Amino acid sequence: MTDNSVVYDVLVIGCGPGGFTAATQASQAGLRTACVDRRVSLGGTYLIDGAVPSKTLLDESYFYRQLRQQEAMEKRGVKLLSAKFDMQAAQSALKQTIEGLSNMYERELCKNSVTMYKGTAAFKDSHHVEIEQHGMDRFMVEAKYIVVATGSAVIQCPGVVIDEDKIISPGRALSLDYVPSRFTIMGGGTIGLEIACIFNNLGSQVTIIESQGEVCQNMDHELASATKTLLQSQGVIFLLDTRVKFAETDVAGQLNVTLLNKPLKKAHVHHCDVLMVSIGRRPLLEGLHISNLGLDERDFVEKIDKQSLSLLGYPHIKLVGDVAIGPMLAAKAEKQAVRAIQSISSTCPIVTPTCSFPPNVLYCQPQIGWVGYTEEELINARVPYQTGKVFFSENIRYNTLLSQKESTTVSSFIKVLVDSHTMKLLGVHMVNDDANELLSQASMAVSLGLTAHDICKVTFPHPSLSESFKQAVQLAIANGKLPGVNVRE
Amino acid sequence: MTDNSVVYDVLVIGCGPGGFTAATQASQAGLRTACVDRRVSLGGTYLIDGAVPSKTLLDESYFYRQLRQQEAMEKRGVKLLSAKFDMQAAQSALKQTIEGLSNMYERELCKNSVTMYKGTAAFKDSHHVEIEQHGMDRFMVEAKYIVVATGSAVIQCPGVVIDEDKIISPGRALSLDYVPSRFTIMGGGTIGLEIACIFNNLGSQVTIIESQGEVCQNMDHELASATKTLLQSQGVIFLLDTRVKFAETDVAGQLNVTLLNKPLKKAHVHHCDVLMVSIGRRPLLEGLHISNLGLDERDFVEKIDKQSLSLLGYPHIKLVGDVAIGPMLAAKAEKQAVRAIQSISSTCPIVTPTCSFPPNVLYCQPQIGWVGYTEEELINARVPYQTGKVFFSENIRYNTLLSQKESTTVSSFIKVLVDSHTMKLLGVHMVNDDANELLSQASMAVSLGLTAHDICKVTFPHPSLSESFKQAVQLAIANGKLPGVNVRE
Repeated sequence: MTDNSVVYDVLVIGCGPGGFTAATQASQAGLRTACVDRRVSLGGTYLIDGAVPSKTLLDESYFYRQLRQQEAMEKRGVKLLSAKFDMQAAQSALKQTIEGLSNMYERELCKNSVTMYKGTAAFKDSHHVEIEQHGMDRFMVEAKYIVVATGSAVIQCPGVVIDEDKIISPGRALSLDYVPSRFTIMGGGTIGLEIACIFNNLGSQVTIIESQGEVCQNMDHELASATKTLLQSQGVIFLLDTRVKFAETDVAGQLNVTLLNKPLKKAHVHHCDVLMVSIGRRPLLEGLHISNLGLDERDFVEKIDKQSLSLLGYPHIKLVGDVAIGPMLAAKAEKQAVRAIQSISSTCPIVTPTCSFPPNVLYCQPQIGWVGYTEEELINARVPYQTGKVFFSENIRYNTLLSQKESTTVSSFIKVLVDSHTMKLLGVHMVNDDANELLSQASMAVSLGLTAHDICKVTFPHPSLSESFKQAVQLAIANGKLPGVNVRE
Repeated sequence: MTDNSVVYDVLVIGCGPGGFTAATQASQAGLRTACVDRRVSLGGTYLIDGAVPSKTLLDESYFYRQLRQQEAMEKRGVKLLSAKFDMQAAQSALKQTIEGLSNMYERELCKNSVTMYKGTAAFKDSHHVEIEQHGMDRFMVEAKYIVVATGSAVIQCPGVVIDEDKIISPGRALSLDYVPSRFTIMGGGTIGLEIACIFNNLGSQVTIIESQGEVCQNMDHELASATKTLLQSQGVIFLLDTRVKFAETDVAGQLNVTLLNKPLKKAHVHHCDVLMVSIGRRPLLEGLHISNLGLDERDFVEKIDKQSLSLLGYPHIKLVGDVAIGPMLAAKAEKQAVRAIQSISSTCPIVTPTCSFPPNVLYCQPQIGWVGYTEEELINARVPYQTGKVFFSENIRYNTLLSQKESTTVSSFIKVLVDSHTMKLLGVHMVNDDANELLSQASMAVSLGLTAHDICKVTFPHPSLSESFKQAVQLAIANGKLPGVNVRE
């Protein structure tokens, strides 16, 4: 079989953040590397129809939301006659951004001498993959190591058939060139909430249908509660404890969604123009022909060795990113990619991140950010801790940012959780327009095991929002000295 | 003399950031504390007519600048009919912000049981200060310790008399309720450059007159050059190597400023509507009657012991902030205040910041931020170092922020300087809209002595601007491995 095959040390299947990182790292480690991706543009869901379009439209839509708050603007001295949002122009700006980033991926791979194929990949056996590039003949690649980074796909729901017209996936929602009047979302996870914010800002009446009794269940309770209050204050409607039974378009073209309120056991019909299904994602294995490895798609995920990220029985086949274990985050995919290549080559130049605390951000406005443990986790684990919580309304920089200060009804705050024995930072939770960047300091503290006293030694820029982080830490230290107050053992 | 005196452990004179911190810290340490400030509103130059109004107007004026770039906005999907700036409304919003912060100072002092006097303070002898509150009788305070935190005043220039009408101080500039057509600034330091940005954004033709051949001489050369290019691209005119000989108003009410070009030794007359004098600040000692301590205002600064911050011969009199030694920064004032109180009481609850690297930010847009050593300092000190520099145009988060991405002709970048022997971070220099907050991570790294490898262990939020910090650090590590490249010994 080797005769007609192109031979590589490493073949990476999929070129999202995980695959891209694996391919560049492998090549930098001196391995002959190829990468294959089924799309014309590189970057995977993350770049093409996931995080990047979502973050771009969030930023744009909050800017537009701000312009519409004319009274608040006039108070600050800015008079606007009118502001309109043109979704088609916004989409074409977004398309440019995506193309720019996708080309950057392409240039980086080229610079790193990674051979790039655009087409499908199917296992023939454990060392051979058949590649079919768009409109070209198939050929065989033989590789010593294979990294599978094919990503994930939307989970479908029986009775709610995604037609990408009225019943749509999140990827489709992010490429809509119009703003639906009534936009309903099935699923109150991070993806659903962020897309809810975009369309709510642009003027849609947004409803979120969530089968559980609360949204954001992985957050610290205080933060989750602030998130819900925030989105409600901005006009988003939540239907909790509610299941979607089925959805269908009537003769007038209206979408009728039959809902079941779980506690009341009562069904009713909800009307909307567009329904987005966002109830989760599953590993994407279609077309890979893993049956040729003697495996079934069903038990695939259980066949991954957590330590080596290898497929059980196939130590040379590595899985990284959404297709593998762990949260479906780009940061995790990249970390796994580095680990996968390090397990292949000891010359891999990058130091492995050892931190097991990926920071999380919900990019609403203000942003919700957290890293490390929640209060609930510490209480359950009986870890004695002390808290320091300060409001940004007491922060000088915050007060000089009039747009931040007046944009929301929910108070921006930062809360730190400090281990009462070691004084190490265990968790940081915050609500702030700039949480995404403020979280970096917190991530450094939590992942490097810094203590509260370390943070007190740092001189932060003045005036800056970051000073509230230090202030919260100082408060946590002070609170520990008051017997019984805020120290929960 | 004690008979009629009110007795305190600590009397703090001045309630800017330094005085405020000294007073609250002293009281928290269990000392009976009073504070006296000559203004009705607390907060000093910093809060009333310095950093806070400057940062607020900068933020507002850049927002307005963005709204005026209609073509760029339309490309992104936002259509605006017209945008106007109302300086009177902006000033009244600013006034509210200042009052809010000033009241916060007042509440904090009250919460900490600090007795507050609003009036003048004059030394009678080394333990007695006479206080005259507005419209009330004078009385005497006796204090074991006295903290002088009276701040600084604008340095005047012969031939250029500040009348606060056409020839004005920075404090007056920040309270102008109109936008002058031609706004000229004498002095190219941080204060001058920031106020230049405000009025340039609001439509003034701004000219900066600087007697030296370059602006921002304390910056890393690469950063200083970016700063000048940036402001020039936004329309600010620089007249370097130029001295102001005198300024006078003619019969038509126009201001004529006679300039001397130093290299050409040629004088010419420059016309403008307002001239702001910003050539530096000096310790403010008026009315303190330090002659009663046997001292002269002239040699006052040389009479301060650098270690204890005490007045030589008077170990119980401490000096903090602008009136003392070191750069005139609020962060430094607060640090000195903590040190001063710690030298008085060992029970002072806050850990001393030991870092000698105050981070610096020039709040133009994008912001210019730096902490630690410049390349020039390392070269002069013959410290072997390696650099990593990355452009934010390669950062994914940056690309999702369309307003950041397209707002400037100067490329945003971050440059890290790493010690080639210890791998510790020695300096971080950056140009970015969010430099003020990004700098916090860099400050943590530099002041805690973290190594490049420590930073590589951190998982930063994804996508975030902070990832470029890590990427620059990774590049600095990689550059060290290329013999001779970027390693300057």
